[in-house]
Amino acid sequence: MPRLRLALGQTNPIVGDLAGNAAQIVEAARRARQRGADLLAVGECALSGYPIEDLASRPSFLASCADAVRRLATDLEAAGLGDLPVVVGHPDGPFEPRTLGTSNAPTAIAQNAASVLQHGAVRARYAKHHLPNYSVFDEYRIFIPGDDLLVVRLAGVDVAIVICEDLWRDGGPAARVLEAGAELLLVINGSPFERDKDEVRLPLVERRARENRVPVAYVNLVGGQDDLVFDGDSVVVDGTGRLVARAPQFREHLLVVDLELDPAGNEHDDRIPDRVTRVELDAREVAERPELAPDIAELPDDREQLWNALVLGLRDYAGKNGFASVILGLSGGIDSAVCAAIATDALGEARVFGVSMPSRYSSEHSRTDADELAERLGCNYSVEPIMDLVHPVEEQLRLSGIAAENVQARMRAILLMAKSNMDGHLVLTTGNKTELAVGYSTIYGDSAGGFAPIKDVPKLLVWELARWRNAFAAARGEKPPIPENSISKPPSAELRPDQTDQDTLPPYEVLDGVLDACITQALGRSDIVALGFDEETVNFVTRLVDRAEWKRRQGAIGPKISGMAFGRDRRLPITYRPNL
Amino acid sequence: MPRLRLALGQTNPIVGDLAGNAAQIVEAARRARQRGADLLAVGECALSGYPIEDLASRPSFLASCADAVRRLATDLEAAGLGDLPVVVGHPDGPFEPRTLGTSNAPTAIAQNAASVLQHGAVRARYAKHHLPNYSVFDEYRIFIPGDDLLVVRLAGVDVAIVICEDLWRDGGPAARVLEAGAELLLVINGSPFERDKDEVRLPLVERRARENRVPVAYVNLVGGQDDLVFDGDSVVVDGTGRLVARAPQFREHLLVVDLELDPAGNEHDDRIPDRVTRVELDAREVAERPELAPDIAELPDDREQLWNALVLGLRDYAGKNGFASVILGLSGGIDSAVCAAIATDALGEARVFGVSMPSRYSSEHSRTDADELAERLGCNYSVEPIMDLVHPVEEQLRLSGIAAENVQARMRAILLMAKSNMDGHLVLTTGNKTELAVGYSTIYGDSAGGFAPIKDVPKLLVWELARWRNAFAAARGEKPPIPENSISKPPSAELRPDQTDQDTLPPYEVLDGVLDACITQALGRSDIVALGFDEETVNFVTRLVDRAEWKRRQGAIGPKISGMAFGRDRRLPITYRPNL
Repeated sequence: MPRLRLALGQTNPIVGDLAGNAAQIVEAARRARQRGADLLAVGECALSGYPIEDLASRPSFLASCADAVRRLATDLEAAGLGDLPVVVGHPDGPFEPRTLGTSNAPTAIAQNAASVLQHGAVRARYAKHHLPNYSVFDEYRIFIPGDDLLVVRLAGVDVAIVICEDLWRDGGPAARVLEAGAELLLVINGSPFERDKDEVRLPLVERRARENRVPVAYVNLVGGQDDLVFDGDSVVVDGTGRLVARAPQFREHLLVVDLELDPAGNEHDDRIPDRVTRVELDAREVAERPELAPDIAELPDDREQLWNALVLGLRDYAGKNGFASVILGLSGGIDSAVCAAIATDALGEARVFGVSMPSRYSSEHSRTDADELAERLGCNYSVEPIMDLVHPVEEQLRLSGIAAENVQARMRAILLMAKSNMDGHLVLTTGNKTELAVGYSTIYGDSAGGFAPIKDVPKLLVWELARWRNAFAAARGEKPPIPENSISKPPSAELRPDQTDQDTLPPYEVLDGVLDACITQALGRSDIVALGFDEETVNFVTRLVDRAEWKRRQGAIGPKISGMAFGRDRRLPITYRPNL
Repeated sequence: MPRLRLALGQTNPIVGDLAGNAAQIVEAARRARQRGADLLAVGECALSGYPIEDLASRPSFLASCADAVRRLATDLEAAGLGDLPVVVGHPDGPFEPRTLGTSNAPTAIAQNAASVLQHGAVRARYAKHHLPNYSVFDEYRIFIPGDDLLVVRLAGVDVAIVICEDLWRDGGPAARVLEAGAELLLVINGSPFERDKDEVRLPLVERRARENRVPVAYVNLVGGQDDLVFDGDSVVVDGTGRLVARAPQFREHLLVVDLELDPAGNEHDDRIPDRVTRVELDAREVAERPELAPDIAELPDDREQLWNALVLGLRDYAGKNGFASVILGLSGGIDSAVCAAIATDALGEARVFGVSMPSRYSSEHSRTDADELAERLGCNYSVEPIMDLVHPVEEQLRLSGIAAENVQARMRAILLMAKSNMDGHLVLTTGNKTELAVGYSTIYGDSAGGFAPIKDVPKLLVWELARWRNAFAAARGEKPPIPENSISKPPSAELRPDQTDQDTLPPYEVLDGVLDACITQALGRSDIVALGFDEETVNFVTRLVDRAEWKRRQGAIGPKISGMAFGRDRRLPITYRPNL
């Protein structure tokens, strides 16, 4: 029973930064070697970053990727790591276009590939069969499906390699390649986080292991990429479906595990179906290796996972786009308080700039709650009253009602953007998912900003996360970051005297319930009413949701944490008459 | 040789307005009957509107569509038109999901169908085989492909029916169904306009007719839908590939044509391949019918086509979204002048509101050119100086440089949005494609607005269209709408003294050339240099284009007229390090 020491590199690539991503992989190989690993695998498109969208249809990008694969192989060799086989994901091409199409628009010319590098060269290659094209995935648009299967043999062990979606299909390439005989299934993935995803992903890996009686190793990317957050959470289960290794969520990690495997028998050879490529890799002399300590990270609870996803989403968006700092308006309310706390956890208090911008309708507590928040966080803080800036506009245009209210929100956007233009901060917009859903915001006002930390967090969950974050701090003997009054007071936009959100919206308990049915479950009006909601409320809310589509299209991106967010996984026309 | 009188209804649906779209089809049937037609066909998804995006994955929407198909059949019957067979496009479902996916996101549960209605019922049905999933098309995401073929027999004539993309594939369902024997190929389409599309579409129809020696009837939608403009341009060619009927572009039309056809012989029956459904429709007694005048619309020249596309795109976006009027800033420059002229052609001068918003840096000619434009157009016009509004902001924040420049542009956005909030106008943003490409605009400033009439028009083409529109007016004895000085003066943003666009950008002749290579042809830097452009300029411009992706994501939608516009047919990550 040979022991295979497998290393899974949970790396955090930047899309297009081929040299930087390759350097992460070389570093993972160096550490894998130090720990005596026989084989290293990194995630889907770990070399290019993921998802790459229409970059995959540019021949010049594919040429750069092909160069980067060759260079990675020679860099590993030059670093004395050439005998360690490395499985790396990358786009491959260009190939003949799948279709010519009806216009001169680019179409799929690439494959989503895994290459096995050893001794300075590409020794084997696999192309993903199943191209997800739903939700946030657009792969059928940009990739040509593969149809070959791959088994590499290393020190007498047959390792089958597939990519992400290939694992999810019953009877798909994972099942077929294992029929051909293999002692280990290795899956490289780019699988984004969403709430409770671990309740789906790990059970799938366990089931595939049990079905085929082989260990399954699942390596995932980590990091924020636009509105996606890859959570890592790479896992290895043995042939009985038992979890034997798990990388931590939301950070880079090298997971190393020893697997006891039956050696591949020659009897497999005559069962090989068509289209299985077998490649024999060179095995290194295995010297005495130190025992490995078990490495099974514990998953934190739901709220901590969500908070960590939001923190990483913001940190990587700012960092990968070259922003050293962020700026946001602090209203004293719960949304901006939670955003500021996320930003402080992501970047440190010195890189967060809060601005209180009171108007004539701002209550005393708005100002004092904002002051207190800034003090608790220790972030930078300034006060910029807007009364004297708004007044001349109202006078010149003789504004009243909504038009006047919106000027206040838009003047605040002018101030934040001006400070951003002066000092290079990324402007955060603090709207939550509920507000975005019903359009309860001012376009070019409070909705202005480059990144929206809580755009996928419904209002009730914003409060829950605030309470969780405070309790988490208290449990560690730290000062809770969010002022109690910001959590407990009734929410208000404060654009006119004594305004509260519930002047125009149903109670949040009802609203978030209807929105979950309407957005996450995509139910029609009559189905939502059948869940027990009041018909008039349902009609009112769904009308708001349909009308707000336009605002959402012009909104900032922000981390996705739920099954169905606004953004790429929800594509509706702007021009339409709802008929649902 | 029986004569088949065929009617093609070029209708302009609104997505989701099932009752209104059905009423358009009933009206087309009424007029087809008056003109003695034997068969009426309307466009792809003419009943639901097109494209419907993720509405196709909502069971409640599909249920509404199924109701609407049944109701259309009975409405036609009730109107005394039941014996006229009507071919109508609509989404059909729900069916079992194509894949379960890795999350609870909706996936394809619908087919893109054509139903043949007669005597108050659905007599036959076809589902599109080839689902385009490139450029602006997302059909593989939302539809399940069909795999049956359909031939309907009417008065002894076999008519094969396919949908749009099915016609484009060599050896596809159009070819296969014709092998089974048919005397006419009928194709229903949702084919959006782009420049020179008629040089691709008509030759394809002609080629298919010649290849199969059968007449081909091609019916297309018309109208603006978000950033797409369907141009109509429905055509019929005979079995030798000769054009025998053509509907006008950019307006609703009923095209009626007589076709001399060989009757279907019984010998076809034994050649029917599997999966061809044959349905015999009831033929009406053909009474004496008046001769038809030939109906072959002439295509206008390139500039006129483009102008008409821009006018219809704006008219339908405003109209279908319930805006009675539009408002835009008039700077005296060429972009706002062209947008105002398009708006006036689209909506009439009474529904266009121009606002001149001079700053301390505005030249005298900015004001006088704007005055003159408004006078020539006859639109509503007001002047709102911004100096006294901008000054307090600059003072309070001690702004300088770009930050101060941007406040001017953002203050103008506040004024336009305030007027929009007061009076319900749709705000137009007047940026052109060149400006959008390189990010030469102020986010939440001049880029603010719900619709961008010329977002797909490069700067050189803006000038060309302005000159064309003036010449077009002059040729008809009308006053040219655009002041000569707006066309001839050097372009400037006028955000600081004596600024011109060429302070920071290469000459537009060079810039538009590089951008065409970079965006429309999706070439990498070295390929663009190989075209003869200066390397430093290419690096400078492509860097600007990469950085501007963020602004474009937050931009207004606007009509697409080129092979590769910003918006749905260009999906790039926001976070990436260019490596092209």
